[in-house]
Amino acid sequence: MKHILTPLILAAAFTALPAIADEADVLDPAIKAQAEALMAAGLKDDVGLEFTESLTTEIGPRLAGSDAEWRARQWAMIKLKDLNFQQAYIEDFNIPYWERVTETASVTGANPQKLAITALGGSKSTAKGGVEAEVVRFTSLADLKAAPADSLTGKIAFIDERMVRAQDGSGYGYAVAKRGGCAQAAADRGAVACLIRSAGTDSHRMPHTGGMTREGALGALPAAALAAPDADQLARLLERGPVNVKLNIQVKTADSAASGNVIAEVEGSSLKDEIVLIGCHLDSWDLGTGAIDDAAGCGIVVAAANLIQQLPGKPKRTIRVVLYGSEEVGLFGGKAYGEAHADQLDKHVLIAESDFGAGRIWRLTTGFGEGAMAYAKAMQDLVAPLGVVPGDNSSKGDSDVSVLGNMGVPAISADQDGTDYFDLHHTPDDTFDKIDPEAFRQNVAVYAALTYVAAETGWDFRKAAAPAIEDQ
Amino acid sequence: MKHILTPLILAAAFTALPAIADEADVLDPAIKAQAEALMAAGLKDDVGLEFTESLTTEIGPRLAGSDAEWRARQWAMIKLKDLNFQQAYIEDFNIPYWERVTETASVTGANPQKLAITALGGSKSTAKGGVEAEVVRFTSLADLKAAPADSLTGKIAFIDERMVRAQDGSGYGYAVAKRGGCAQAAADRGAVACLIRSAGTDSHRMPHTGGMTREGALGALPAAALAAPDADQLARLLERGPVNVKLNIQVKTADSAASGNVIAEVEGSSLKDEIVLIGCHLDSWDLGTGAIDDAAGCGIVVAAANLIQQLPGKPKRTIRVVLYGSEEVGLFGGKAYGEAHADQLDKHVLIAESDFGAGRIWRLTTGFGEGAMAYAKAMQDLVAPLGVVPGDNSSKGDSDVSVLGNMGVPAISADQDGTDYFDLHHTPDDTFDKIDPEAFRQNVAVYAALTYVAAETGWDFRKAAAPAIEDQ
Ligand SMILES: [Zn+2]
Ligand SMILES: [Zn+2]
Ligand SMILES: [Zn+2]
Ligand SMILES: [Zn+2]
Repeated sequence: MKHILTPLILAAAFTALPAIADEADVLDPAIKAQAEALMAAGLKDDVGLEFTESLTTEIGPRLAGSDAEWRARQWAMIKLKDLNFQQAYIEDFNIPYWERVTETASVTGANPQKLAITALGGSKSTAKGGVEAEVVRFTSLADLKAAPADSLTGKIAFIDERMVRAQDGSGYGYAVAKRGGCAQAAADRGAVACLIRSAGTDSHRMPHTGGMTREGALGALPAAALAAPDADQLARLLERGPVNVKLNIQVKTADSAASGNVIAEVEGSSLKDEIVLIGCHLDSWDLGTGAIDDAAGCGIVVAAANLIQQLPGKPKRTIRVVLYGSEEVGLFGGKAYGEAHADQLDKHVLIAESDFGAGRIWRLTTGFGEGAMAYAKAMQDLVAPLGVVPGDNSSKGDSDVSVLGNMGVPAISADQDGTDYFDLHHTPDDTFDKIDPEAFRQNVAVYAALTYVAAETGWDFRKAAAPAIEDQ
Repeated sequence: MKHILTPLILAAAFTALPAIADEADVLDPAIKAQAEALMAAGLKDDVGLEFTESLTTEIGPRLAGSDAEWRARQWAMIKLKDLNFQQAYIEDFNIPYWERVTETASVTGANPQKLAITALGGSKSTAKGGVEAEVVRFTSLADLKAAPADSLTGKIAFIDERMVRAQDGSGYGYAVAKRGGCAQAAADRGAVACLIRSAGTDSHRMPHTGGMTREGALGALPAAALAAPDADQLARLLERGPVNVKLNIQVKTADSAASGNVIAEVEGSSLKDEIVLIGCHLDSWDLGTGAIDDAAGCGIVVAAANLIQQLPGKPKRTIRVVLYGSEEVGLFGGKAYGEAHADQLDKHVLIAESDFGAGRIWRLTTGFGEGAMAYAKAMQDLVAPLGVVPGDNSSKGDSDVSVLGNMGVPAISADQDGTDYFDLHHTPDDTFDKIDPEAFRQNVAVYAALTYVAAETGWDFRKAAAPAIEDQ
């Protein structure tokens, strides 16, 4: 197909016909029909839900580098073999290890009461028995950073900044800055600990954990997130006068722990050394069972690849499913994959990762070469009947695959509706019952169709813009 | 007013005019106008919300018999005096004390993972270090009771029965039976512990606590509630084969701890020895800050009485506001009040308790003598513009005041919309942010109007049915 695309587009440019009709034609009718059949099958798929149910039930929480994450890899190997993937293997790597042991907080003094907190990934331990100090509230990280040096000596910094609910999750980037920045900014001003209002959109007493850095390093201070109602409570108490909080966080760390990526393949035919990579991450935070983050993503991409491998003929290109390890604590799986496959980079024709829950995909964003926009349009048109609108061309791929995306590999983001995602994200509440099976299946349908098209058409998603055409 | 009611009703009966028009006339227009003014003031009230905010913020959780409940009584005395109630006093009593110390549960074996549980009030301790045993699942308490004697020797009984969501909370009675009955039924069959699916309607990892008995006695076994997602998880694991759970519950008990009722009065004028009692309970479970259960109820009845005491003239009857202690662990405050005021029982003309959250009142149920139905109708008509429909005449009063209601004192139940109440009830999530201020104020409006009418009209709510009239 890619060999006949260029003339078509050029023809459109020269004759000034509307480009849309011609661009839609880039998708071979037989491939389109097969992709539509895959969508129909995806909407009835049970393999993905069963995969997700099994992982969250039998393994449960899967902290990066933990025994549970190791068990998840063995579990995944068995599941992938049971599904008859031709290849399934593990690529090992090591990570710095961090684990929470205890985490308690309480207001002391005249209004004594417990606060619901959870340590942030990478938090230091407090002194044994805890630290008690006066709390100083800031309404943003910038506000804390504006405080003079030494102004927090011996105190606990508290960033009480709310996160905005948004369908595309765009409130998270802003909210998460305080999770990464609080400890260092507080330490720089003499503080003994830092507390943040959870980076989340719910009002449950479920604090949201999450890493402080993307490198897995220990943070500068003991640091914890308050559940939203507890942040409210602390703010109300602070309106009345000084408040002391006693914070006890004990963590366990190790310089090195075993992690790994689990990889399965549907081997291609005529273009078998070219790879369409669809990913997810196998690890989760320790508080919940990591259902929406990210067992669901794994269930979706495995089910999509499974539908394709059940077709009578092999697709042209190889489909590689990567269940990354240790995403949560610093994209370690993504980086390890990038290093292990550095020499294969140009063979990766398209990447995508499902790591934003199991809400309906409502938008398809691409990250293609400018000459490949007709392929973007064709893919967007293909999944439009599933309720997906076209996005822009800014995708670098999500989570682990963004390591490749940032090195120039073409990417797709099948954007899920994340309106409620940050109600559950990184909390104990991230459990299997939160997944809507119909929305999950729509995800399988989208991934199956797009992965198939990418593998079967042979399209070059890197394609540069056509040279500028002189006016006639 | 009550002296002219009987002739009116009899007249209606004799002349066969529609009774409704005449019955509505029982409410003196001046009293009605004043009640309507109180409703308007209630809809703008801030006193009740501030009372609730202050109690939940400054005291927080208020376990029956605890230091925190003691502090709540002192706090309430100050608040009531600040509001210029003429009388405010505490009636002390003692209760058996129970407090949770630690509570953990985990699945052991091939699928090791933590379970979110909370001990039920009155649970025994397990052996130090916990007890590990195989779990046997039942879908109802009846199902457990049908199991043969000794069939659970050395095992943990698990009642996985779901609660029905209902506006009037009617799912609770059924659901709570397993909370009270599991331990004894399990012990009778040789079990070492019992687990129930929380008596709640949410799907959060927030187990619901609650008393096992209404007498505050220790239960027969260690007993705990699983959060709904954890009950689901355990059920899914049991589908796969035998499951062992390790349960560690440690509690602290004492034969006697101090509790008390806080009472405030708006002294009446011409009928000052007659009492209209509006109540709530000051204690809460220890997990949340007891906002909907039952700081809100206290804020509502205090605010209602406060609006009435600000009127230029005293109402005829005395309005007594009772903030009961130790409701949660066995209606101890209600019983203590009943005993302390046994000789005053016939002076209690009407009772009501707000103890079902702060949702909008949608129905007014009465428990009047059959001769007093015109008063019921008049009161229902009065609050109908606030969105309240007439209920039946089956009320015995709620929670603590039902002690009096069951002894024949006329009662009102201002039924709140409890559709979401059991999402939060007895969980850590019962916090101030869950209260809708508009719905709360509607409650204040209803209580202010009805309390005023009961105090000012002098109506006899005990009034028996008129003697049967022979056909003419
Ligand atoms: Zn993730
Ligand atoms: Zn995550
Ligand atoms: Zn209550
Ligand atoms: Zn209660």
